[in-house]
Amino acid sequence: MVTKQLVENILKTKMEDIPEEVNIHGKKSLYNWMGVAIGAAHHPSVDMVLGLKEDIQSAEQVSIFGRTEKTDLLLASLINGMSSHIFDYDDTHLDTIHHPSGPVAPVVLALAEKMNLSGKQVLHAFILGCEAELRIANAVYPSHYHLGYHITSSTGVFGAATAAGILLELNEEQMAWALGIAGTQSFGLREMFGTMTKPFHPGKAAQNGLMAALLAKKNFTSSTEVLEAKRGFANVLAPEHDLAKVNVAWGTEWELLKNAFKPYACGIVLHPSIDACIALGKQVKAEEVERIELTVNPYVLELTGKPTPPTGLAGKFSIYHTAAVAFLEGDAGEAQYSDASVHNPEVVAFRSKIHPQVDATVKEEEVQAVAYLKDGSTIAHTVKNATGSIENPMDDNALERKFNRLVHAIIGGGAAESLREQMYKLDELENLDGLIALTKGNAERILN
Amino acid sequence: MVTKQLVENILKTKMEDIPEEVNIHGKKSLYNWMGVAIGAAHHPSVDMVLGLKEDIQSAEQVSIFGRTEKTDLLLASLINGMSSHIFDYDDTHLDTIHHPSGPVAPVVLALAEKMNLSGKQVLHAFILGCEAELRIANAVYPSHYHLGYHITSSTGVFGAATAAGILLELNEEQMAWALGIAGTQSFGLREMFGTMTKPFHPGKAAQNGLMAALLAKKNFTSSTEVLEAKRGFANVLAPEHDLAKVNVAWGTEWELLKNAFKPYACGIVLHPSIDACIALGKQVKAEEVERIELTVNPYVLELTGKPTPPTGLAGKFSIYHTAAVAFLEGDAGEAQYSDASVHNPEVVAFRSKIHPQVDATVKEEEVQAVAYLKDGSTIAHTVKNATGSIENPMDDNALERKFNRLVHAIIGGGAAESLREQMYKLDELENLDGLIALTKGNAERILN
Repeated sequence: MVTKQLVENILKTKMEDIPEEVNIHGKKSLYNWMGVAIGAAHHPSVDMVLGLKEDIQSAEQVSIFGRTEKTDLLLASLINGMSSHIFDYDDTHLDTIHHPSGPVAPVVLALAEKMNLSGKQVLHAFILGCEAELRIANAVYPSHYHLGYHITSSTGVFGAATAAGILLELNEEQMAWALGIAGTQSFGLREMFGTMTKPFHPGKAAQNGLMAALLAKKNFTSSTEVLEAKRGFANVLAPEHDLAKVNVAWGTEWELLKNAFKPYACGIVLHPSIDACIALGKQVKAEEVERIELTVNPYVLELTGKPTPPTGLAGKFSIYHTAAVAFLEGDAGEAQYSDASVHNPEVVAFRSKIHPQVDATVKEEEVQAVAYLKDGSTIAHTVKNATGSIENPMDDNALERKFNRLVHAIIGGGAAESLREQMYKLDELENLDGLIALTKGNAERILN
Repeated sequence: MVTKQLVENILKTKMEDIPEEVNIHGKKSLYNWMGVAIGAAHHPSVDMVLGLKEDIQSAEQVSIFGRTEKTDLLLASLINGMSSHIFDYDDTHLDTIHHPSGPVAPVVLALAEKMNLSGKQVLHAFILGCEAELRIANAVYPSHYHLGYHITSSTGVFGAATAAGILLELNEEQMAWALGIAGTQSFGLREMFGTMTKPFHPGKAAQNGLMAALLAKKNFTSSTEVLEAKRGFANVLAPEHDLAKVNVAWGTEWELLKNAFKPYACGIVLHPSIDACIALGKQVKAEEVERIELTVNPYVLELTGKPTPPTGLAGKFSIYHTAAVAFLEGDAGEAQYSDASVHNPEVVAFRSKIHPQVDATVKEEEVQAVAYLKDGSTIAHTVKNATGSIENPMDDNALERKFNRLVHAIIGGGAAESLREQMYKLDELENLDGLIALTKGNAERILN
């Protein structure tokens, strides 16, 4: 009944049923997503996946954001979804450590371009796709994540199928099948964190979910009880789960409103430490510091305990590297996660001064930082709610600065400004031709 | 170390290291696979997946067996892999209930057609792909399967990546990455059994594994410890596992030799009951029978307990339907699993006479059947090793009859005979142009 109820909820929720506040946050989520997707569009890993275009002689159907190439619908969903997660700089639903836009945005934008859909249709499908995947994530978090699943792809595939299903106008049975075809493909091992395969996850979830909806539209049959069946998604992939969370308060509570934007280009669990180390770095010089102790939630060190990250991507999973660059450079943007940065001798030297320790009474969004100086004195800095949390969100100006920093070199300042305007009035656009034209990027950024 | 060792084993095993017996069984496996792939090539579900060709304007790179269409490499792997599993008539590695050819054969044949490879290259990659996936299956069976995973796709993706990786000439690091990109995509819920999504599984595993190898070839990075890592494949997807089984006796014991071919178009667990009911049907008329009791392993009823299957596909998961058609029609081929067959009033009436009961002391390959007649007499028939088991295999003539029955209506008798000859001398073929030309099918079979 859970799957059936979810399908009913999805299909009964029209654009006019979605509160304005949710619409605005949806547009902001898409704006943030587009920035991170364009920003990483010339990363070597994107070149590699785009190489599949030649392997399969993919048709030039829809756009790759931040580039001039086009590929077919399915490949574009993979590439754009992957691109948006490369910098680990995309949005985060903090309750489940889920990046909701990644698997959904590339699908709605690809279908919009191919089917000449309106901005309102895109926003509607995007919001409901995010809502579906986040509610499913709520139902299986934390056991599913702790078991080892990258929840963004493993539940994101449902979001992609939901959003595509809305745009393809699936009926109830077809939508249930789409969720079935999507859900059986739930995948993503956390073992991949720190490699190119991590950002591959949301992209492939987007592709798989879109294919699921395309097949269901053709009446390709599947289970109609994928979420709750004895050998369905929840029982197989989540040792503990509460499927009541999937449909509870549908239409009155919106999970998408809990979607936060990251000021830093790494996992959200490092943000308190970054805030603290930036603050410490403003107060004292590197050579004066003997050691910095960071008292964090145990989970933070479990996720980011790599002491000597070999690559920039791996640096995102190193509290040592991250704290060092935050202290030394006052930021943790994508420049701080280049391959050059993790091998920078100054950074390498300073990261040996970083001493994390765990304390289960410290929350994930907190840190207690203490710098022990060579002169025997100490400086303490405690962060209760990191920048980018729901309690301490990025404001619109900060979001625009982030967006511009990501896209300027690729699409230029004028296009960046126009793109922001278009994205914020997405629901007024008759089609996305103008918006998508602004995302074309010729320049190649120097990433490393 | 398990993944690294597997990669070393795969890459060190040349064609000349493979015993002749294994080569012959490999060719026989591909022959059987081609028959079931062609046989189902005009099933409605294949038309649906082939509909994706139009959705993505897929390039005409390689062949869809049993049809005249071509699609791109990745889509063809999906379609051919799916087609081969639709009738549930493909090969089975009995130790793990795995259908090894499904995820591997479509990949090696697609690459062979595109890259103009020799038959020897194809056979080499096919055998090692099967060997890799079956050894991984051994390591996680039964807990992985019992948890709810369709082991054919969930481990088959490794086989597809291995086979593709060999043909793409990956180096050691790339092959480890390919297994990583493949393994993180391990998927397939048993909840899908009885729907079109079940045969979708091996096809999608083929596609995902091929994509993994194509990406690894471009140096797309991944974990190099996907099998054994803390949050890698075995720990996340199999509550109990023994990874030593992956590499044990590599090169001296061949799992592919345990691959059996099915005389009946359904799960192997039903084969003893089919043998028994065919035997009973030859001895007594339907109207004389009061009830038939089938004492089976508990697992048989867990898998095939559907009392009133709504479709032919679902009929494959119904011991009631299966036993009824076996008794009434003396066979359980694809004709007995049409939609018409499960709604045939005579069949529907007789299936109420089928009474399975479970007994844990009865092995999966056994059945104790007793027909209770209206005149008060009984006829007992016990099967110890069902037809198609390793102990009681189909002989070459029976395999040829099966092949011909599947492909005649689609490619014609002359092509069927030529195709058999080509498949049996696969390792002598300079390229597969002639062989693949024989697989083209114009006729559409009447399936229902």
